[in-house]
Amino acid sequence: MRILADAQALEAAGRDVIHLEVGEPDFPTPQPIVDAGIAALADHRTYYTGACGLPQLRAAIAGFYASRFGVRVDPRRIIVTPGASGALQLILALLVGRDDEVLLADPGYPCNRHLVRLFEGKAVNVPVGADTRYQLLAAHLGAHWSDRTVAALVASPANPTGTVLEAAELAALAGACRERGGALIVDEIYQGLVYDRPHETALSSADDVFIVNSFSKFFQMTGWRLGWLVAPDWAVDDLEKLAQNLFLAPPTPAQHAALAAFEPATLAILEARRQELDARRNYLSARLTQLGFVQAATTEGAFYLWVDAARFTDDAAAFAAQLLADEAVAVTPGLDFGDAPTMLRFAYSQPIARLEQACDRLAHFCKQDLQNGVFRP
Amino acid sequence: MRILADAQALEAAGRDVIHLEVGEPDFPTPQPIVDAGIAALADHRTYYTGACGLPQLRAAIAGFYASRFGVRVDPRRIIVTPGASGALQLILALLVGRDDEVLLADPGYPCNRHLVRLFEGKAVNVPVGADTRYQLLAAHLGAHWSDRTVAALVASPANPTGTVLEAAELAALAGACRERGGALIVDEIYQGLVYDRPHETALSSADDVFIVNSFSKFFQMTGWRLGWLVAPDWAVDDLEKLAQNLFLAPPTPAQHAALAAFEPATLAILEARRQELDARRNYLSARLTQLGFVQAATTEGAFYLWVDAARFTDDAAAFAAQLLADEAVAVTPGLDFGDAPTMLRFAYSQPIARLEQACDRLAHFCKQDLQNGVFRP
Ligand SMILES: Cc1ncc(COP(=O)(O)O)c(C=O)c1O
Ligand SMILES: Cc1ncc(COP(=O)(O)O)c(C=O)c1O
Repeated sequence: MRILADAQALEAAGRDVIHLEVGEPDFPTPQPIVDAGIAALADHRTYYTGACGLPQLRAAIAGFYASRFGVRVDPRRIIVTPGASGALQLILALLVGRDDEVLLADPGYPCNRHLVRLFEGKAVNVPVGADTRYQLLAAHLGAHWSDRTVAALVASPANPTGTVLEAAELAALAGACRERGGALIVDEIYQGLVYDRPHETALSSADDVFIVNSFSKFFQMTGWRLGWLVAPDWAVDDLEKLAQNLFLAPPTPAQHAALAAFEPATLAILEARRQELDARRNYLSARLTQLGFVQAATTEGAFYLWVDAARFTDDAAAFAAQLLADEAVAVTPGLDFGDAPTMLRFAYSQPIARLEQACDRLAHFCKQDLQNGVFRP
Repeated sequence: MRILADAQALEAAGRDVIHLEVGEPDFPTPQPIVDAGIAALADHRTYYTGACGLPQLRAAIAGFYASRFGVRVDPRRIIVTPGASGALQLILALLVGRDDEVLLADPGYPCNRHLVRLFEGKAVNVPVGADTRYQLLAAHLGAHWSDRTVAALVASPANPTGTVLEAAELAALAGACRERGGALIVDEIYQGLVYDRPHETALSSADDVFIVNSFSKFFQMTGWRLGWLVAPDWAVDDLEKLAQNLFLAPPTPAQHAALAAFEPATLAILEARRQELDARRNYLSARLTQLGFVQAATTEGAFYLWVDAARFTDDAAAFAAQLLADEAVAVTPGLDFGDAPTMLRFAYSQPIARLEQACDRLAHFCKQDLQNGVFRP
């Protein structure tokens, strides 16, 4: 967050900043979605919808699960939300009561900890490392699950690490949570953005999990603020009431636009962009390794590389701040995601030419740094 | 809520339902705003904005306070939110800790009670009646403020009563909260929709209040999900962090569209619509009085009439359900807003011809009802 603000300030001062810190690729929303949004506005679709979203969008999302993953979901179990942010908020509002505990992987998406605390619950950080590809697994539960624990929250592909949970791991996690009388929440916001393997959904491994998803990342609709959740049937009525109180409804023009998200023309654009992201990933990964940054786990999804800068520094936050100031390259320090003082997150959200420029600047910075020893005094 | 679902079911079954239950006028968003939204989409303004919204929109809102009310507000103190819903949530998330109390007028907008409880606070309902035009005033605080009270929340114009707080009453309330070390939150979502008097803002009466507002009602942008809050300077940084965790950002196309909300062409459309609402108010108010419904306080704003149906029933919820079933006229029972078993809320959100039809059906229903005595057995 500080890096983002500093990067914007530098930019305002006229510097050419390369943004590898933001969780948003440079692609605009695919044209068929934009066109559907424009048509909806021209057609005056500007009124409130129901709290759970347009029935036809809920049906379209159910159709997507059927056609893409061969999974049947009753559209009633799909609730359209203001982004995955809204979905996470709704699910945590439902599950977390006073002093209830939620297990979260550390490192992980930082907002979740704050949401749990906002509802007066306790976010329990479970340290995860390269040995489990930075994923929280069933094997972790024993040491961290207490009689106040109500849920475990995982993400696949994950932010900041880009790693993916296997179907068997998801089934084991869901079973382990179920056995303990708790819920499993799986954040699939980066679904579709995986590179060396087929897309999956945790719904293929278990039907009683809470799924978080979004039109932000794979569908490249970040600014529209639209996502969804899939809930077990027993939770739907309560989630609807919560949605009513928290949001009233998700944005209407965005919902109409999103109806075009599942069309073949859109999916073709998205597949081309996925391949472009894959090429960027391979480029950046190779260059960073060459420079001496260590990737302890293979990044299979999302658009992030999670690298160890221990060769250069024991304070990656200071390293990132200096890199920004000296070379106008913005990356996110690991401390933003948990207890990871030497780690950095690089988002390959820019074209390869731009990544190349960033790596050249980084090479210059690291060489200088090693010479004058700023980060290993 | 039940009425809304039942009304939709009736409609789906082919009945011609007259909707006087929804908090949304029949007007579409004014064309200049729609056009600005379309232009923004065509221009690919589909990325995340900062958590507090576009700087130019925050500046435009500040400009609106200056030009319309002669009030100076630093744009930094204005945070753009996903509707007034988002603004209420942010402010309550900031102010309400475990077991903290918030004073709310009963009757009042029901979501607020739920939000306070979600943050593990206690919503203290303060019964208000016709003697204070259903408004919570400084005089009420003595009896309800405890050492756990952190804020009082009022609305002007109010939902469901449409009544307005006077500048002097707002100043007294703000002073009384300040003295007790608490905050005053003023929901001004119906600002601009007042009929026999000039528009006002509580910021003219006190600078240290939390203001909630929205593009939903006066600007007729309900489905876009865009609102704002004005906070005291000390609260801004914490609110920004909360906004980041809860929403990430407000919807981008809506923000660009809203830049056209303050243009003279838009304001002219809105003024004509305000006059139309005034005419509807006068028509419906006269007809309901004629029919025997009692308006205990003059409705000066919003688009609601709050009437006592005691002449017909001591169970206005049953009355409303029967009115919907028999005559396909949907109105909201008072119990949805608090301890008001004989009250009804009529929204004059339909054209006069339609209100006339509704009143004719209502007249038929009441005559029948008085004859067969369904509601006074
Ligand atoms: C893991 C994860 N979950 C949820 C979100 C929220 O995204 P949105 O609200 O735009 O859908 C993000 C955004 O970066 C994320 O990385
Ligand atoms: C008093 C009041 N506050 C807040 C809201 C929330 O409106 P929105 O989130 O659309 O701005 C409403 C909606 O009816 C309302 O009546």
